[in-house]
Amino acid sequence: MAAPVALVQGASRGLGLEFCKQLLKWKTPAVVIATCRHPDGSAELQKLAASGGGSGGSPLTLLKLDVDREDDVRAAAERVAAQFGRVDLMVNCSAVLHPSGRGETSLRDVSAQGVLSTVSTNTVGPLLMAKYFTPLLQQGAGAFGSQPPEKGRQHRAIIVNMTAKVGSIGDNALGGWYSYRLSKAALNMVTRNLAIELGRSAHNKVVCVSLHPGTVATDLSRPYHRNVPAHRLFSPEHSVSLLLGIIQSLNMEHTGQAFNWDGSPLPW
Amino acid sequence: MAAPVALVQGASRGLGLEFCKQLLKWKTPAVVIATCRHPDGSAELQKLAASGGGSGGSPLTLLKLDVDREDDVRAAAERVAAQFGRVDLMVNCSAVLHPSGRGETSLRDVSAQGVLSTVSTNTVGPLLMAKYFTPLLQQGAGAFGSQPPEKGRQHRAIIVNMTAKVGSIGDNALGGWYSYRLSKAALNMVTRNLAIELGRSAHNKVVCVSLHPGTVATDLSRPYHRNVPAHRLFSPEHSVSLLLGIIQSLNMEHTGQAFNWDGSPLPW
Repeated sequence: MAAPVALVQGASRGLGLEFCKQLLKWKTPAVVIATCRHPDGSAELQKLAASGGGSGGSPLTLLKLDVDREDDVRAAAERVAAQFGRVDLMVNCSAVLHPSGRGETSLRDVSAQGVLSTVSTNTVGPLLMAKYFTPLLQQGAGAFGSQPPEKGRQHRAIIVNMTAKVGSIGDNALGGWYSYRLSKAALNMVTRNLAIELGRSAHNKVVCVSLHPGTVATDLSRPYHRNVPAHRLFSPEHSVSLLLGIIQSLNMEHTGQAFNWDGSPLPW
Repeated sequence: MAAPVALVQGASRGLGLEFCKQLLKWKTPAVVIATCRHPDGSAELQKLAASGGGSGGSPLTLLKLDVDREDDVRAAAERVAAQFGRVDLMVNCSAVLHPSGRGETSLRDVSAQGVLSTVSTNTVGPLLMAKYFTPLLQQGAGAFGSQPPEKGRQHRAIIVNMTAKVGSIGDNALGGWYSYRLSKAALNMVTRNLAIELGRSAHNKVVCVSLHPGTVATDLSRPYHRNVPAHRLFSPEHSVSLLLGIIQSLNMEHTGQAFNWDGSPLPW
């Protein structure tokens, strides 16, 4: 079988970068397409590409893609179609807390522009990725997840939308972070809608789930690290290793749902 | 006691217009502030204002407010502060299915601009209303809802965000309508966040709920009326009468929740 093809959106740092690293060393090493706004500016990604994942020819392809620009998403999908013809796993990682870098602590901090900019990246971004990459996902080889024996219940590919526990409406007991919270609640609706639309096809089913990575030591959460008990602040390595474990267990029975890093269900 | 003060946002037609009519004839007739984008262009609202609600001096005040413009919301709040000094009930009614008038039937129909425009009206609008009207709501006289005897559990005012059953993530079994669905899921998160932030004050508590009005014969749903069994297609009169019944039963025990037109809980 040809190598699995994984696309990681928002790959320049944090969880996205770590997904690239671990997928390149996957049990069947994946061909990884790493997209970000400025591939030339990401020293880590450049290093990873230059190292060739340790396997001679580089299995890492860097693609410029700003998820806030619909034209960028379309162009990237055309590039991937021409070069790879399919995608088996798409992980949407780009996210912002708020354009200011700080979640709103109260209504005073809320602005229309701040909300809409956050929704554009965190919600509309993954939706546009699904819109333009669906034809490639429907051509996937089903290389990720856990395929049941019956052909009619197998999937071609998996979409993972990175959600967050604070995006759970029912779990929300603290408030604040208006833009981030509502953008992730909206993203969970996107997951649900995609699962329905992409689950209808008889032979080209795509699984779509939301995953909560835990509180991970990344740039996004950096202003808040000191509030998190050390044992609950995951390294990207630890979080992505857990998430890839979940991804390997997924099939159509799980589509349209949200899961925590430990595999437990995340309430809407 | 002075007349209750109710503000209806998105009052030019449909549910908003009907809220104005019924609140003007409320058991204790309310002073009603009706906001919409073009008060001069709404014949129905003009007629209602001219009729003075049947009580001599007109208890209906028309205010221009485009919820997509933060400056409009701020200016309207300043006008209401100067003229009334308080608000007891704020009902956010403005909503669009999609700028095209039609919900997306599949990913093909999705555009970034369509999603963001829908979120601006349906989600950010009510959030901005809360931001700028909170000082007035916190000065409310608690004229709506069901006040418990203990002072510390009483509320000053009520915010109603008009949600929709199709905005329930857990209830979503059909998919489609990406923009509308995700904007209402996000609005439910706004409701939850507002309930937390505005429930903290010892003496100035504000109740905030999401209400689903049923499928109502309004312009928003017009393209879909033929798909709805007649007995499930409510008139605005019927829906608003049910919703006002729910509103009169509300207190801080209900804040942060979502209810259907029959009072049953709406899942997130």
